[in-house]
Amino acid sequence: MRGVRGMLGRTLRAEKELPQENAMVLGTLASIRSVVPGFHVDSPLGEEGFWLTTEQVHGFHCLIVTAKADRGVLYGVFALLSRMARNEEVVALNEVQQPYAPLRWVNQWDNLDGGIERGYGGRSIFFEDGRVRTDLTLVREYARLLASIGINGCAINNVNANPRLLQEDFLPQFARIADAFREWGIRIAIAIDLSSPKVIGGLDTFDPLDPRPIEWWREKVDAIYRRIPDFGGFVVKADSEGRPGPSIYGRTPVDAANVIASALKPHGGIVFYRAFVYDHHLNWQDSKSDRAKAAYDTFHPLDGKFDDNVIIQTKHGPIDFQVREPVSPLFGGLQHTNVSIELQITQEYTGQQRHLCFLPSMWKEVLDFDLQLNRNGTPVKDVVSGKTFRRSIGGLVGVANVGTDASWLSHPLAMANLYGFGRLAWNPDLSPRAIAEEWTRLTFGSDPAVVNTICEMQVNSWRVYESYTGPLGAQTLTDILGSHYGPGVESSERNGWGQWHRADHEGVGIDRTVATGTGYVGQYSLPVAKMYESLESTPDEQLLFFHHVPYTHLLRSGKSVIQYIYDSHYEGAEHAAGNVLQWKLLRGRIDEPRYSDVLARLEYQAGHSIVWRDAVCNWFLRASGIPDEKHRVGNYPDRIEAEAMQLAGYSIVNVVPRENASGGKAIECLQPRGCKASFQFTRDAGWYEIDVVYFDQSNGDSSFRVLVCNQLVDEWVANDTLPATKIGGDSSMRRRIRGLALRPGDEIRIVGTPDMEEHAPLDYVEIHGLQK
Amino acid sequence: MRGVRGMLGRTLRAEKELPQENAMVLGTLASIRSVVPGFHVDSPLGEEGFWLTTEQVHGFHCLIVTAKADRGVLYGVFALLSRMARNEEVVALNEVQQPYAPLRWVNQWDNLDGGIERGYGGRSIFFEDGRVRTDLTLVREYARLLASIGINGCAINNVNANPRLLQEDFLPQFARIADAFREWGIRIAIAIDLSSPKVIGGLDTFDPLDPRPIEWWREKVDAIYRRIPDFGGFVVKADSEGRPGPSIYGRTPVDAANVIASALKPHGGIVFYRAFVYDHHLNWQDSKSDRAKAAYDTFHPLDGKFDDNVIIQTKHGPIDFQVREPVSPLFGGLQHTNVSIELQITQEYTGQQRHLCFLPSMWKEVLDFDLQLNRNGTPVKDVVSGKTFRRSIGGLVGVANVGTDASWLSHPLAMANLYGFGRLAWNPDLSPRAIAEEWTRLTFGSDPAVVNTICEMQVNSWRVYESYTGPLGAQTLTDILGSHYGPGVESSERNGWGQWHRADHEGVGIDRTVATGTGYVGQYSLPVAKMYESLESTPDEQLLFFHHVPYTHLLRSGKSVIQYIYDSHYEGAEHAAGNVLQWKLLRGRIDEPRYSDVLARLEYQAGHSIVWRDAVCNWFLRASGIPDEKHRVGNYPDRIEAEAMQLAGYSIVNVVPRENASGGKAIECLQPRGCKASFQFTRDAGWYEIDVVYFDQSNGDSSFRVLVCNQLVDEWVANDTLPATKIGGDSSMRRRIRGLALRPGDEIRIVGTPDMEEHAPLDYVEIHGLQK
Repeated sequence: MRGVRGMLGRTLRAEKELPQENAMVLGTLASIRSVVPGFHVDSPLGEEGFWLTTEQVHGFHCLIVTAKADRGVLYGVFALLSRMARNEEVVALNEVQQPYAPLRWVNQWDNLDGGIERGYGGRSIFFEDGRVRTDLTLVREYARLLASIGINGCAINNVNANPRLLQEDFLPQFARIADAFREWGIRIAIAIDLSSPKVIGGLDTFDPLDPRPIEWWREKVDAIYRRIPDFGGFVVKADSEGRPGPSIYGRTPVDAANVIASALKPHGGIVFYRAFVYDHHLNWQDSKSDRAKAAYDTFHPLDGKFDDNVIIQTKHGPIDFQVREPVSPLFGGLQHTNVSIELQITQEYTGQQRHLCFLPSMWKEVLDFDLQLNRNGTPVKDVVSGKTFRRSIGGLVGVANVGTDASWLSHPLAMANLYGFGRLAWNPDLSPRAIAEEWTRLTFGSDPAVVNTICEMQVNSWRVYESYTGPLGAQTLTDILGSHYGPGVESSERNGWGQWHRADHEGVGIDRTVATGTGYVGQYSLPVAKMYESLESTPDEQLLFFHHVPYTHLLRSGKSVIQYIYDSHYEGAEHAAGNVLQWKLLRGRIDEPRYSDVLARLEYQAGHSIVWRDAVCNWFLRASGIPDEKHRVGNYPDRIEAEAMQLAGYSIVNVVPRENASGGKAIECLQPRGCKASFQFTRDAGWYEIDVVYFDQSNGDSSFRVLVCNQLVDEWVANDTLPATKIGGDSSMRRRIRGLALRPGDEIRIVGTPDMEEHAPLDYVEIHGLQK
Repeated sequence: MRGVRGMLGRTLRAEKELPQENAMVLGTLASIRSVVPGFHVDSPLGEEGFWLTTEQVHGFHCLIVTAKADRGVLYGVFALLSRMARNEEVVALNEVQQPYAPLRWVNQWDNLDGGIERGYGGRSIFFEDGRVRTDLTLVREYARLLASIGINGCAINNVNANPRLLQEDFLPQFARIADAFREWGIRIAIAIDLSSPKVIGGLDTFDPLDPRPIEWWREKVDAIYRRIPDFGGFVVKADSEGRPGPSIYGRTPVDAANVIASALKPHGGIVFYRAFVYDHHLNWQDSKSDRAKAAYDTFHPLDGKFDDNVIIQTKHGPIDFQVREPVSPLFGGLQHTNVSIELQITQEYTGQQRHLCFLPSMWKEVLDFDLQLNRNGTPVKDVVSGKTFRRSIGGLVGVANVGTDASWLSHPLAMANLYGFGRLAWNPDLSPRAIAEEWTRLTFGSDPAVVNTICEMQVNSWRVYESYTGPLGAQTLTDILGSHYGPGVESSERNGWGQWHRADHEGVGIDRTVATGTGYVGQYSLPVAKMYESLESTPDEQLLFFHHVPYTHLLRSGKSVIQYIYDSHYEGAEHAAGNVLQWKLLRGRIDEPRYSDVLARLEYQAGHSIVWRDAVCNWFLRASGIPDEKHRVGNYPDRIEAEAMQLAGYSIVNVVPRENASGGKAIECLQPRGCKASFQFTRDAGWYEIDVVYFDQSNGDSSFRVLVCNQLVDEWVANDTLPATKIGGDSSMRRRIRGLALRPGDEIRIVGTPDMEEHAPLDYVEIHGLQK
């Protein structure tokens, strides 16, 4: 009724009996049958499926939404509302839908202090100041939103779990969250720390085979279920990135998972045991060492030993949510164990909701990937939904990390990822374009210009992001040691984290073959392994993940690897700039606040894609010594480097890594009253635009003024909140001053005033002529 | 440059010399002549006029904006920007403009505590907490805005003046305001309290003929001019509504005005002495007594005695900014004295920016009114601009009262009044429609549907407001003793304020004729007096201002006065409802925030016009005993009175005056936990909308819930900030619940929960069928 009222402005009447008039009738099959004798379903309905149909009842036209259970009716109602919202027919319906996978969960990495690990949409909707929020309005809205796309569970706290959540006084608090979710058919889980029996339980051990921790877990779980009878279970990150785990006592993940599973079992709870277990002190000098092998090496030997209410929750790729990875071989390595696939909705490595990156395009490729475990075809979607190996539970888990921002994920177009996750979990046979179109029409209405433009942007955006970050399977070439955001080509090398791309002056990529490399390829089924073992049959977009090749290696297109790296980065940055122009055509067709918000983000992305392009291309130019055939890399005729300007007060600094600033240098101002950088314009008279490339750190709000022949033409304060406290690829920003009349001999002057730790840093200025 | 950049996104180059290319050239005639030999103006330019022209200079095309002085150049630039903003031709210009009146001032009635007397647009932009604001950004924006419509002066504080403003420490503060205004060619004045020499000067008298106050004023003025060399002067409200004045010492306004004028004279300052002087303890039982006569009686005998830097500032009508008044006869009574006309932009008696009321329609009639002082025609505009009696100063003063609200006057369409005031002061020959169209295109763009709809609404809005408040010259029938907002038909009667309409059971109107009435008509020139003296020649719209007639008196249309009162109120309320429908057609053509804001106000106005309609019509029905021919007044078949519902907890209260609530009664809830009022729906099954009419006081935020057969269909909190602390015509509000399916026998229940002094008060419910 809320949905119909919001869309049509009419309040439907709620009645418990069939009225003597046309009606929409909502109810379980049993309740419909009790009032409509002879009513029956043509096809079988699963536990959560629904049927939309029409029927003459006592001479009246009834639109019937029915299902085996309440939750199915709820999903049916949302399907009906979605049709209405998208202006689709609802008069003569006959539609049965079943969810593809039984478990369709989201995880939130929320901390009790209100922050969110790898969250880019504001503060936690669940927690603040170490407690559950008093006002749970947003939690209820989130629950409704999740239910509308068929999500049936949510883990509410960071996998790097605070043991405090299991303290007795916290139970009534998270029980309130469970209450808010319950009316929308969503169960909650919490992430736990395996050392809890020791840390908060007062025991001297958390050895999973010691009877005291076993008893402790049983009592804890019983207490939770007394208050939350539909509690979902626990998420476990153990022996991973410094988290405590069973290895301390020489025990296995099986020992740890099964102890907790036993406690949950009588109540119907589940253990989501994360397969993200690896050694982050690998020996980078060992050419056989390979982080990609860790999950399979750890969990494959344990296959069949986990209890039937344990799920091994596996990231889709063997590394960590990079812009491109092959499918994790562990999905083929657990044939007697429940599994779920973990996808990341929050854009940790894919632009952090400042860049547009529509992830269903990537997920769809992952879910459709055929592991070739038998002759009938074994796509990942069938393995994780439990179909392939006839597991009773299994499904998809999305790390959502929505926050208090008005659009939940900050970028107004980013919610298409959460929507797409839910839709793929329900039906992985939907195409990314169909998903983008549904979302766009639900979110922005059905104006064809709006729908086409946004869909086109969304469906291309993942490949665009890949093309200016890390193409050919080299993974996201980002700063993996810190922000996971801007370029950081070398940050992966010469350390124990194992996200190596092994680029040197001769070539790039890791040899993961069985014959000559790390042997990772051998974790796949024979046919898949055969494909990846051979350089010839490995797809270009995965090439550098599996093979080390010289820069001159020719791709299928006949283009060399090095030229492809150059070209893809330029093409990606051009595409990002083109999105700005496309978006501007929608002015007036979208409400002004969202129009302006998206425009600002697309303009930022266009600028930052140039930072990426230049950093990656210059790094590879320096490493390979092979020039760009098109003479772009290293040649910037429209650019005036700040370090080449006439400086008053400003001093020149070297930027590390050098490719993260143009020319490897920038200028900084340490004079509290400000500094000047100026140069003379020498080109023809005409209309121009000036891009000022500066750095905006989070630890100061410098201000800038730009003058042409003493006339102020622009001023701004660098007060964005980028993930950076120093000059570099994370903090680089582009300010475009449009429509300037310039004459040869004009002096262009930039006046920067520092603030706190941010020293009004400047990289360069670029001047472009405008068409008349 | 700011204007062009904002509109076109291009930053023009500022150069001091003529460039060797096409250019816009701005400068005084002298400066243009110095670079363009032989340049001359075809027609004479006054002190503030300007010329837009084009000229070939050294072979280049130049668009020249020139004037005798800087201020004229500024006005020329704004005229050029306005053309650009309205998509008009700017290539081949040859346009000379001169302002009609030399003084084009606004007054602000701002108090030092930050409040604004009769201000409906937020807090003061000048003052807060007894001081001038630290941040004067809004003052600078206001100055730019005023300059753009040719305003050249602003009095910055309430005419009910705080003497503190003249204390020594305050001078540096308001000098900052003068500095902010100066760059936009605007002088400031301050309103003063005549008793200042005594109250803050430490003297024992402020007798204007005593040498000590004379000396005090001279020193005070000299000090001001040392800091503010272009200070404009003083505004004086004296011997009026309790303000001290020369009458205390038996002196005249001439004595008081001239003393201050002498102090200002050497510096070029002006005294704006307000003619709003009247006795508010009139004897209402004396049929000769008449407040309308006061200004003329006081000031006409003093004509010719004021110094030449004194202006008598006279409200446009003889009473006080009512929705309809005749022109003040004082404009004809001061032929040897400088005068200015005071118009009210802030909608004190015309809906307080909650109702749409475009006042240029009214002002245009006032300015065009021919006082017939000589045979050539003497329209008010010529008298006040100084033309008729060849006065060197004179002009128009608008009481603006903008505030900190984002749209300055709160209602997004209300700024058309300030715009229109400036445009009429510049050129009173502009039509109200032309002004409305200029403003709309500048404010909302040139979409014809938007321009036509808004213009049509604006130009009709004054007559619409008049029609449902006080037609036929009866003045605004509002609560004149308090809010000046909602209906208060009898508030004007039987008290000394003299805003009487003299309605009783036989007739209505004041006899102001010479022959049988108060004699007011005799203050006009003979031809005008002749027109108003006769019932036959008095225009219907002024009828009741000049004559007392029986309700059965027939108007020119053949309709009786009483039926006209009924009909006009119904027509006005229908028109207000029609505006809502018109506005809804603009959805998507106007940015959402302004669209929604205006829609909410138009919906409120439609509801409140019904409150007005019913209050006035029922009062006259009761007074006259003559029923409405169309059987509407007193008959409300769709209405269910709250006092007739089944009540649980609620108690019935009498409303005073009784016509300000339907049926004279309402219900209130004194139970903290809430009360219920319910009734049974008895009409046919179908789609309906329900209007719940309740009261929203400013001293509490009650909440309401509406249920149909136990189903919640709407809920809201009564938290608007209307000018009312009790039940009545000021606080009456209408909540419309749209699109409800109702069936005979349905129970409709309203649950009200009181808060503080507001007792969840309800008046009635009205149910309307919806077309299918």
